[in-house]
Parts: sequence; C-alpha cells; structure tokens
Amino acid sequence: MPTDKIFRHTVRVPYAQVDIMGFVYYANYFIYFEMARAEMMREAGLPYTELEKQGVMLPVVEAFCAYKSPAHFDDLLHIATRCTEIKGTRLRIEYEITRDGALLVTGHTVHVCVSPQGKVLRPHPDLRRLFMGE
Amino acid sequence: MPTDKIFRHTVRVPYAQVDIMGFVYYANYFIYFEMARAEMMREAGLPYTELEKQGVMLPVVEAFCAYKSPAHFDDLLHIATRCTEIKGTRLRIEYEITRDGALLVTGHTVHVCVSPQGKVLRPHPDLRRLFMGE
Amino acid sequence: MPTDKIFRHTVRVPYAQVDIMGFVYYANYFIYFEMARAEMMREAGLPYTELEKQGVMLPVVEAFCAYKSPAHFDDLLHIATRCTEIKGTRLRIEYEITRDGALLVTGHTVHVCVSPQGKVLRPHPDLRRLFMGE
Amino acid sequence: MPTDKIFRHTVRVPYAQVDIMGFVYYANYFIYFEMARAEMMREAGLPYTELEKQGVMLPVVEAFCAYKSPAHFDDLLHIATRCTEIKGTRLRIEYEITRDGALLVTGHTVHVCVSPQGKVLRPHPDLRRLFMGE
Repeated sequence: MPTDKIFRHTVRVPYAQVDIMGFVYYANYFIYFEMARAEMMREAGLPYTELEKQGVMLPVVEAFCAYKSPAHFDDLLHIATRCTEIKGTRLRIEYEITRDGALLVTGHTVHVCVSPQGKVLRPHPDLRRLFMGE
Repeated sequence: MPTDKIFRHTVRVPYAQVDIMGFVYYANYFIYFEMARAEMMREAGLPYTELEKQGVMLPVVEAFCAYKSPAHFDDLLHIATRCTEIKGTRLRIEYEITRDGALLVTGHTVHVCVSPQGKVLRPHPDLRRLFMGE
Repeated sequence: MPTDKIFRHTVRVPYAQVDIMGFVYYANYFIYFEMARAEMMREAGLPYTELEKQGVMLPVVEAFCAYKSPAHFDDLLHIATRCTEIKGTRLRIEYEITRDGALLVTGHTVHVCVSPQGKVLRPHPDLRRLFMGE
Repeated sequence: MPTDKIFRHTVRVPYAQVDIMGFVYYANYFIYFEMARAEMMREAGLPYTELEKQGVMLPVVEAFCAYKSPAHFDDLLHIATRCTEIKGTRLRIEYEITRDGALLVTGHTVHVCVSPQGKVLRPHPDLRRLFMGE
C-alpha cells in the first residue's frame, strides 16, 4: 500500500515560456515542477519560506524530464507531485504534467537539506511525516 | 563635448528567449540591458560583484524599452551602453541594441545606490568618475 | 466618467523569478504584465489565441515599469490591468501590481495590431468595444 | 578510439539567472546546454537555423542534469559538449560545465529530428558525419 500522497497544482502557460515551434521551451517545465513543489509544501503545512526560517534549504542535486507531447501557449496544465523517497540525506520528488487527461511530461528532482552555510543536514522530520505519511 | 563614455557588448540570442512569432520576447531585452550594464561596470574597472563587496547595490527603480524592429533566434546583437546622468541619488543608463547596423531597440534604466539594509546612499564617487568622465 | 474597465489577476511569485537580493528580478514584472493582459483578454471574451486565429497579433512596441517596492518569493501579487487608450494603430495598457494593498509596481505597454506578415492593422473593433466600453 | 568530438563554449552568468541562495537557478543550466548545443552545430558547420531551413527541427525528448557545485553571478562557465550517440531516430548530447577547472554540472539531452509537421525523421546524415566523425 503506497503511503505517499499526491498533490495537485495547475498552471496557465504564459507567452513568455513558449518557443518558435509553439511549444513550451524545455527548461521551463522545471519551473512548473518548482511551482508545484512549493504548493505541495504549502498544502502539506510546511511552506518553503517557513522551512527557510528554520535554517533549512532544499537545493536540487538532480533533475530529469521526459517530454512525451508538447504544451502550448495558454494551455492549462495539471501537475501531480509526490515525494517518493526520503533516504539518507536525499529526498526524491516525482512529477506528471497532463492537459485534459493527456500525459505531456514526466520528471523528477532529487534534493538535499542544507543549512544556510551549505552543510548537508538529515532531512527535516516534518518532511518525512508530511510527504511519506509516516 | 559629451563627457560620457559608450561601452559596447555583444550577445547571441538563445532559442530560450524567442517567442512564437520568432521574435525575442519583450521582457528579455531587459536581461540584455543587464548583461551590457554588468560588462560596462567591469570594463570601467568597478565590477558589480566588487561594488556589492563594498556594500552597495544598484536596484532598478525605472525601466523603459522601445521596440523598433524584432531580433530573432541566433542573431548577434550589439548593445551600446552609457551612463547619461548621475543626479541626487539617481543614476540613469541608456541602451541601444543594433544588428548589422540596424537599430532594433532603445531603452533606459534608472538605478539608486542602496546598502544591503535597503538604505538609499549617495552614488558611489567611482561611478561618477568612471561613467561620466569627471 | 471613465469608460475603461479594470481587470484583476493574481500571480504567485516562483523561486525562479527572484534574484540574489530576494527581490523579483526587474524584467520578470513584464511577464506578470503579459499574464494579466492575457487574462484580461480572456475575461473580455477575446482570448489572445482567438485573436491570433483571426490573423491578428499584438506585439509590444513600448514597455515601461516603475519599481516602488520589491516583491519577494512566494508573494501573492494582485495585478490590475486596463486598456486606457486606443488611438490610430496603437493600444495602451496600464498595470498596477499590489501586495496586501501596498503598491509595488506600476507600468504600461503599448501595442500595435499586425498581420502574421507584419502589416500594421487598424485595431480590431472588438478591442475597442471590450476594453473601452464603447 | 573515441570518434566523437568535443566542442567548447563559454557563458557569463547574468544576474537574471541567479536565485536567492546566490546560485544559478537549476532550470537555467538547460539554457546553457542549449547555447552550447547551438554553438556546437555552428562550429560543426550546420547552424541550427540552417537545419531549420532544410525542414528539420530537433526537439528535446529527454533532459537530465546533475548539480555537483553551484555557479554564481558573473562566473565565467566553460561548457564542453559532445554528441555521444546517434541511434535509430535519437541523438544524445552530453554536457559538462566547469569553472576554473572545477566540475559544477553534468547532464545530457536526447533529441529527435522532426519535420515542421511533427513527423519523426531519420537523423540528418550531416549530423552523423559532423558529430560522430563517421
């Protein structure tokens, strides 16, 4: 039985993020991942700004995206986000972007918890509780 | 006789910054202005990173751009930059972007010198000397 | 009695758009202007994608922004947008960005209607009706 | 004996692409990858604009980045790029970003050749010749 929780967020594609082919430029999906991640943390009750106040930052150490089908200007994109692993000092988040039920993009990011001085920390216990349902 | 000095910088337009029409997206010219401004400061002998170490930041308080003709993907753009006014606490920088001699964009930014705490400072004397030739 | 109509839109500031000072990078407000402009057109009943299908594009010929107070990561920004002038071939849109009632940014853009071939057109009659209440 | 060729490109980090932590925002490295990729194609004698004129586009179907150490504002980054595989309809490009010899970022992108109508094409023979030395 999966203990992880799925969070959902929606973004409207601005003109700024679409390229000559009429497709969302490939790097911009990582911005959507970040927006969805921030909403996930807010909904889970631990906004990123709150985490930062506690002296914890979550830099990305790995990012991946697979592009199945392009998103266009003005599309309403649905982003499903879930934390699938917290292991050692690493935290893995997976993403699926759909439009009207059609899968456009999948991806993941891997993060570490670090102090403002850059020291790697053990993942904040709240993260485990909030995202993994433990 | 104008005492101000013109600085020149060149940027190649990446795919990331071009829109569906095949034109550089309008907000991105302000990034080119910033890149040219940073090179102007480096060439003048006061890199922005150096200014920051001295506790001075140069936030923008006003920005303007007039779009005459579009730039495209892979264009090599020439940006002429000069500081045209340092008055009270304000510093005005003007920009002209050309491609093969054709004028594409003109614009300006207005900056104030502030401390890291946000206190408005008198413009750094070096700025006056370096940019206005005084 | 002003006949123009004010449209309202809200954006959440992503991490991607905030600079070292912790402020929204100055060029990014022009993206917020564009997002608000697109919503204005959708609400007015003439989405930009619909206008494009009719062979009309609205490139920006002038853009201005005055920065009063900085926006930060995760801020919820309110953008008030109105079309203040349609004259000759030009259309002027004004913007005000606030956070919790405090004014952060004001600005405007000027647009022309052009065909896909770049020919300047008289402003689409719907634009006058929808935005100016005429 | 490796037949692939390494291409080198340099970018200066603008203020626009650096986040609150003072690090280049994670999505922006994909822009550097694209800039290096475009220079690789130009140097190899087949600029991307030329490829497009021949009716071939190279959309990204997969993108990956591993972040070892952060880049900062004004850093001069060196990007080594090579095409490591052309197989079936897919083309794989690998990237390494260094600063003063220190490795900051590694990554790759996978591309397909498509027609303007979106039809997947066999990789352009010139690509094989230029990048793989075959």
